[in-house]
Order: sequence, then structure tokens, then C-alpha cells
Amino acid sequence: MEVNADDFFKAAALDKPRVTNKVGSNVTLINVMQIPGLNTLGISIARIDYAPLGQNPPHTHPRATEILTVLEGTLYVGFVTSNQPAPNRNKFLSKVLNKGDVFVFPVGLIHFQFNPNPHKPAVAIAALSSQNPGAITIANAVFGSDPQISDDVLAKAFQVEKNTIDWLQTDM
Amino acid sequence: MEVNADDFFKAAALDKPRVTNKVGSNVTLINVMQIPGLNTLGISIARIDYAPLGQNPPHTHPRATEILTVLEGTLYVGFVTSNQPAPNRNKFLSKVLNKGDVFVFPVGLIHFQFNPNPHKPAVAIAALSSQNPGAITIANAVFGSDPQISDDVLAKAFQVEKNTIDWLQTDM
Amino acid sequence: MEVNADDFFKAAALDKPRVTNKVGSNVTLINVMQIPGLNTLGISIARIDYAPLGQNPPHTHPRATEILTVLEGTLYVGFVTSNQPAPNRNKFLSKVLNKGDVFVFPVGLIHFQFNPNPHKPAVAIAALSSQNPGAITIANAVFGSDPQISDDVLAKAFQVEKNTIDWLQTDM
Amino acid sequence: MEVNADDFFKAAALDKPRVTNKVGSNVTLINVMQIPGLNTLGISIARIDYAPLGQNPPHTHPRATEILTVLEGTLYVGFVTSNQPAPNRNKFLSKVLNKGDVFVFPVGLIHFQFNPNPHKPAVAIAALSSQNPGAITIANAVFGSDPQISDDVLAKAFQVEKNTIDWLQTDM
Amino acid sequence: MEVNADDFFKAAALDKPRVTNKVGSNVTLINVMQIPGLNTLGISIARIDYAPLGQNPPHTHPRATEILTVLEGTLYVGFVTSNQPAPNRNKFLSKVLNKGDVFVFPVGLIHFQFNPNPHKPAVAIAALSSQNPGAITIANAVFGSDPQISDDVLAKAFQVEKNTIDWLQTDM
Amino acid sequence: MEVNADDFFKAAALDKPRVTNKVGSNVTLINVMQIPGLNTLGISIARIDYAPLGQNPPHTHPRATEILTVLEGTLYVGFVTSNQPAPNRNKFLSKVLNKGDVFVFPVGLIHFQFNPNPHKPAVAIAALSSQNPGAITIANAVFGSDPQISDDVLAKAFQVEKNTIDWLQTDM
Repeated sequence: MEVNADDFFKAAALDKPRVTNKVGSNVTLINVMQIPGLNTLGISIARIDYAPLGQNPPHTHPRATEILTVLEGTLYVGFVTSNQPAPNRNKFLSKVLNKGDVFVFPVGLIHFQFNPNPHKPAVAIAALSSQNPGAITIANAVFGSDPQISDDVLAKAFQVEKNTIDWLQTDM
Repeated sequence: MEVNADDFFKAAALDKPRVTNKVGSNVTLINVMQIPGLNTLGISIARIDYAPLGQNPPHTHPRATEILTVLEGTLYVGFVTSNQPAPNRNKFLSKVLNKGDVFVFPVGLIHFQFNPNPHKPAVAIAALSSQNPGAITIANAVFGSDPQISDDVLAKAFQVEKNTIDWLQTDM
Repeated sequence: MEVNADDFFKAAALDKPRVTNKVGSNVTLINVMQIPGLNTLGISIARIDYAPLGQNPPHTHPRATEILTVLEGTLYVGFVTSNQPAPNRNKFLSKVLNKGDVFVFPVGLIHFQFNPNPHKPAVAIAALSSQNPGAITIANAVFGSDPQISDDVLAKAFQVEKNTIDWLQTDM
Repeated sequence: MEVNADDFFKAAALDKPRVTNKVGSNVTLINVMQIPGLNTLGISIARIDYAPLGQNPPHTHPRATEILTVLEGTLYVGFVTSNQPAPNRNKFLSKVLNKGDVFVFPVGLIHFQFNPNPHKPAVAIAALSSQNPGAITIANAVFGSDPQISDDVLAKAFQVEKNTIDWLQTDM
Repeated sequence: MEVNADDFFKAAALDKPRVTNKVGSNVTLINVMQIPGLNTLGISIARIDYAPLGQNPPHTHPRATEILTVLEGTLYVGFVTSNQPAPNRNKFLSKVLNKGDVFVFPVGLIHFQFNPNPHKPAVAIAALSSQNPGAITIANAVFGSDPQISDDVLAKAFQVEKNTIDWLQTDM
Repeated sequence: MEVNADDFFKAAALDKPRVTNKVGSNVTLINVMQIPGLNTLGISIARIDYAPLGQNPPHTHPRATEILTVLEGTLYVGFVTSNQPAPNRNKFLSKVLNKGDVFVFPVGLIHFQFNPNPHKPAVAIAALSSQNPGAITIANAVFGSDPQISDDVLAKAFQVEKNTIDWLQTDM
């Protein structure tokens, strides 16, 4: 089979702003689905748009570390460490990133980015260490799965009443 | 350096029931911290105790797949797929496991086990594909980190009022 | 393709005792052949039954490290290190394991488990760091292969008369 | 050891134009030397500046695939396949990239980017699938090493007179 | 630290015949212990000398596949597959290799080489897919370990009388 | 599917001298294309013939480290380090190898072998840490690709006149 430059190319329009979703963000991921030549090569790239006060909500990538740089605006970013012994148990590490700063979210850890500016959007470029990194938005996976996880289970897991869980499930 | 059998051994008492925590479970993980000979070898093992109606609440392992078998009792288990396209978007896959059944939780996906029996405890043995798999309990990492994640961020992420978030944070 | 919980499940009956073979053991391995969802995930699990005085005879796993815990009875276990320089050259590391103890057999090394109790069976759960670990029972591979390895070769390798080799080959 | 957000952060000023070198480019790579938290995580990121008619000359990354997107201007990019059988033997795959386009350079292959615009600079963000990808600029490694490779060897390798090689070596 | 050509070099004299051991072979392995620059690079090389009727007796490499070519003489080589289902269960695959032939021994499988010529030595070059492949000579590890494995265990494993085992142990 | 010894064998005639090419060498590589059983096993082997004053010209292997031993004659070998900081920036490490010496060329680095003897050929055996290592001959990939890389680009990259580049391109 003859290889072709188009197997390694995508007219992805990563320079263009995207309409953001209900939490004020939009991730445009270019992975092996868009560029077949990425197969087995272990990398992908994304543009992320943030509306004013928008966020890319808490999520994980099950198969990739992420490195991110800010193109426009300001981002408040952070991740939470795992259930390891103190002093690193569920420690929240955060930073305010300005244009040109770089931050790393290690594989599988819960992280988010938030645009604290009420007037201006923000934009970032992120790269991920897999051609198919996957993404799990915590709110959607826990409270908005199909079918829903039993509210009995979630009420005890989150130590709240079932009607609080129902509320969370309704909104997802 | 002379190697020794004790570098590969732990008197782990995995046959002994454990006192369960406030959500009714207890994970006794034997990893490279307990057995130094596991270094680089890519595996670890755990006993999990479940109180009646107890659960090992929704969590992920950032660096490992888990395979589990039930030793005592019954478990209702499940995991949620990632944000991939339909029909697999945030799909909740679940199963009731009886003694001797085996189930797999793929690397990085959110999963839980729940003991549906109001009278009897349950016990499982789980193995993980890393000598240091890590564990992230979603409720603790999102609502109980140190310091806490801003309730502004979480309220929007979970599409609820800030006082609901505050409630969730108080309880962790 | 829509994923399904059954792709990650096996009603393996790992709680049930098995009839043991002529050396007094039975390994029930649950790997990617039984659970297709294990593909590429790097783990598998097994129940091992030991008759009184039975053994899981000297063997290796060409693609996996093994971690084992004793569920019932007592096991005398060990592995032999490789042809490395002294003091670790072909060193035999062994341990008596009681219920709840954990032991590790590093990838590719020759190891065994023996039930020293003449009256009671033993049971262990083992996990392996591959979805397809493979197993090579030394006696079967060396003296019971199909076709047989030439007794000229084996007599010199084991530094014995050919009729001793023939004897060993007859019994496998 | 307590982890800290600064272990995962670099005020890299990737938004700022750089002075370009004699071939009209400047690569600002943020790897594990700048961000210690990247250790073992398999990713890094770079800003690349191109002067008008400037180029990031033919080079390879011995330990990484690269994915690149154009932030400003236009780039003519390409890579050459290896010595495999026809029709893919030393095939030159090229593409003109506009703002927002994405292109992939597979691990170890010789590639370059060239800014064809005589008046305007160009800028790209690239990510690499290693925390320490390495870079080998062909001209520098072949004709500008320290000490120099013998011109006898190079004259025959490149099928030219030794004085052509000497010329090439003088300029590096 | 400045790197040096000697970190990647060994005056190994692989062209020189070696005195063979009691089973008529000698393996001269050049691995990371001899060449520090091999660290993490996943390869090593060996010369193997075979006396007339000599053999490199049944052994495994726990961390490497081996590829071998014959430099001098003739070799009868083979390996045994693992305990997989028929028709591949403990199948013995063998071949007579002449000068210039190439054969592969997959990772972890038991294999040997035998020089069938009663008058002439043989020589091979082998390469292994690890900078520290390890080697386990079956006879030495099973019957010649330090301390010895209990003859009770081995008698049952090999389905022979204990005095046959004692004999095998005496000779190692 | 039943496995067969021929899946792991190649009558490669690596003992036979080869006719060398215009730069005085010939690489006979035995990889997964010749031996299907090598699939996923991470190793391959080659014989390299060198005419008097012949060379295996500067090249890289994008997916493999190489280890080489000299069978006949003498070789002057070397590789160039990457664009890392001083004192290792584009450092040329070289060595004269006699029969039986061993040398390592790390993955992805530009290296060559040259036979300095004007009267006698040389022969080496090399092994590579991939079943499909790939090879990129610098002169061919840079100056002899199909189609050719623009001489505008190459003239600037190599800091010479375009007619020097044209000359180099003509000869490939």
C-alpha cells in the first residue's frame, strides 16, 4: 500500500474559535480517528475554547498524560493527586496560567481548567500522550451515564441524601 | 546484593476480615511498598471487604486494569465508558457477581462494587496490572481534596447550586 | 460496535474445588480466551487447587510475573534465580505460606507450589501480569514434548545415562 | 516528598516571538529538563518560530513522533519514508499547511518545515511523544559534528568530491 | 557527564574460540554489564561455541527473544511450545541449521542447540532482545540449585523415584 | 493454527559474501518479512559486507538500537549524538573495531561503518532491537527522495549554493 501525505494531515481549523457547551468549553481533539497515520504513534493534539467564566470540567484521560499551553486569556488549572499516604493524599495542586505558560496533567488524574475572566474567552492547545487518549468527564460519567448508576450507591458514595443525587442526575 | 525470599513475601493476612470504613468497605492492597521485589514487575493484589450494603465507591486506577473475583457474598459491580461517540458514550456496564465470578475493570475507567445484601458481608480478591496502580476515589478527589476545589468551579461542572456543592464538600 | 458487560465477565466458578491431576493440582486460568475484554489489558487471574501432598510442579510463565495468595491450607513455594553471578546463581528462594500470605514469582523464573499437608487440600488465587501469560511445565516440556527431544541431547544436558532419560520420558 | 504545582509548571512564554537562527527558525522545547514532573510521562511541547523564508531544517527525533499545528502564517512541511521497498522507498510526503492545520511526523523519520512567505513570519506549536525526544539536525550532525566525520567517508557517502564535503563542513 | 565511545564498545574477542564446559558449549554474552551504554536499549549479543557433540543445553531467557545464525558447522536446534491447547501443546519444533541459516527462539520458551558433528566444533552468533536477558539452564535450576529443591517435590513433578532425582541432583 | 518450525527459520545464507553497492556495502537484513514468527518479538539480525574502502554510509534506524560485531577485517565506526547541550552536542564518537569487537549504535542516532583497508573486505553481524527496525540512509533520504526535496530548502539547510545541492541530488 502506498502511503500518502493525507494519511498524516487534517485540515482541523484549530485556529478557529468554537461555540462552547453548557459549562463554557469546547475540546476539538485531533486523534487517530481524524489522522489514520497516528496509529500506534502515541500522540494527539487538541484546541480548547473557554467562554468567559467557562470551564473544561473535572475529567481524566485513562490512557494519556496531557501537556497544555495557553494561547489566549488566563486559565486557573489544577489536578488532584490519588489516595496515596499524607502529605500527598488527594492534594489539590493548582496554578493560574497566563499566555505562554505550560502545565502538565499526569495520566489518569482528575483535572480541570477554568477561565476566571468574566469578559474574555480563553484558548489553549493541549497535547496527549496517546493516539486515542480517551476522556471521562466526572459529572457525566458519575451522574449522567446511560443507564444511570443507582442513586442508592451514589448517595452513600457521596455521603448525601438520595434526593441530592437525583438532583445531580437530573441536571446532567 | 544477595536476594532473599523475604523480598518477594508479605504476611498480609488477606484471609482476615477488616473493619470497613464509613461507606462500608476496606481495600487491603499489597503493592511494591509492601513487597520490594515487585519493582518493575507490573502487578499487585488486594483483598476487599464489604459490609452489608457497603460499597467500594466510584473510583479509578490511573495506571492499572483490575480483575476481580468474589470470595464471599454477592457484589453488584459496574464501570462507565468514556466520552466516546454513541452508542458507547458514558455507557454504564453492570453485572451482579456471585461467588466465583470474575469481572474486569479496564484501566482508568470509573468503577465501583456494591454489596446489595443487607445482612451479610462480601469479600473479593482483586489484582491490578501495576506494582503501583494508584487509586482515585471520585468523591474524595472532587469534593474532599486538600485544599478544596473552588465551589464556583464545581457548581458549574455539576450544574447545581453552590450550596449543594458546599454540602458535598462538608461531608467528605 | 456496542460494548457489553458480558465482554468483561466470566461465570468462572472460582469458588468451586476442582479435581486435581496426577501431580495433585489443577490451575483454572481466566485469561483473554475466556474474557475478550481483557485484550491488551495485561492481566489475568487463576484459582489453583492442591490435593494433600499435591503440587503445581516446576514451571515458568514466559510473559508474566505471578502474585499469589493462599485461601486455604498451607503451601511451600519457591523459585530459582537465573544463571547470574554468585551469590545469586541458581539460588533457590523458598517460603512456607499460610492462609492470607502473599508471594511473588518474577517473570520467566522456574517456580512451584507444594501442599505439605498429607490430609488437607489447599487453595490459592494467583494473578498474572499478562492477558495471555503462557505456562511451561518443565517436566512436560523437557521430557514429554511431541515429538520427544532426542534422549542423546537430554542425557548430556542432565548428565545421566540415556536410560534414565527414557524413564523420565516414559512417565510424562 | 511533598509534590508541588511548580513541579508541573513552566512560565515558558510560548506566546512570545523568538529571534531566529541562521536558517530562520527557533525551537523552544519544554521537556523534562524544564518540568521535572514530566519524568516518565512520555510527552513534551514546543513553540517553533519561522522567519520569512525561514526553515526548521531536515532533522529527526530519535525517541518521538511529532504532531504540529500552525498558529500563524503558512508552512510547507514534509518527511521522507525509510529505505523500504517500492513504492514507498524514500518517498517524500509533503503538504502546505495553513493556520489551524495539523500534521504528523512519525518517530525517527527525517522531516522539515519551511515558511514560503518572503514577508511574514510563521509560528507553530508542536508536541512530541517523549519527555526527552532528542533532535538531530542532519546538516549539523553529518557536516558539523565535533570532531568532524572524515571527508573521505562523507565524499563517498554523498557521491561527491571531497572539496564539496569540505565546503559543506566549513559552513556548518 | 560527557559521553565517550568506550561506553558503547567492548573488545570482546568474539572471533576467538572458547574452551567449552562439561556439556560441550560456552556462551560469551556481551550485555549491559560489559557495555554500560546499552542501558535501557533492549539488546545484547553473544558468541556460542559448541564442541563436537556439544550442546547449549535446554534453557530459557526470562526477558528476551533470541535470534541466532550459524557461523561454523551445523546445529540441531529446537524449542518447545507452552501448555496451550492442541495441536500446539508442548510441541517440539526443531530444525537442522547449516552455516548462514537463521532461527528464532521466542521469549521465555525452553530451547537448546546441539552440534551433531562428532569431529568438528560449531559456532553461532546470537542476539537477544534485552540488555539483560537472563538465562536459566533447566538442569541447573531444577536439579542444581542452592539449596536444592526437595527431592519429594521433584520426584512427584517428574513422576520418578526419589533416587532418580537424587542421581540427577548429584550430577549437577 | 498449528505452528511450524519454518515460521521461525530462514535459510538466509548469511555466511555468503554479497556483491556490494556503489558505496561499497551490502546489508542483508533478516526481519519479520523473512521470518513471520518474529512478529511482536522485537529483534532482527543482519550480515553486512564491506568492499575494500567500502562503507555502510551514514544512516539511522527509526525504531531500533543496533549492536554489531566484526567477523572479518577492520571497521572504523561512529555515531553522532543529538542536539543536546555541550559537551555532548553533536559529538562524534568513533572507534576502530577489529575482529571480535562489539559496538552499539543507540536508537535513532546517525551512524556509519567504514572499511579502511584498501585491499581486503570486511564483514559484520549486526542485531537490531525491533522485528522491523527501518533504515534511513541520510544521503538517499535527503538528496535522493522521490520526489526531490526543493533545492531552495536544502541550500539553506546546508548553507550552500543551490548548484551544490543540485550536484548532490544528481548523484543520488
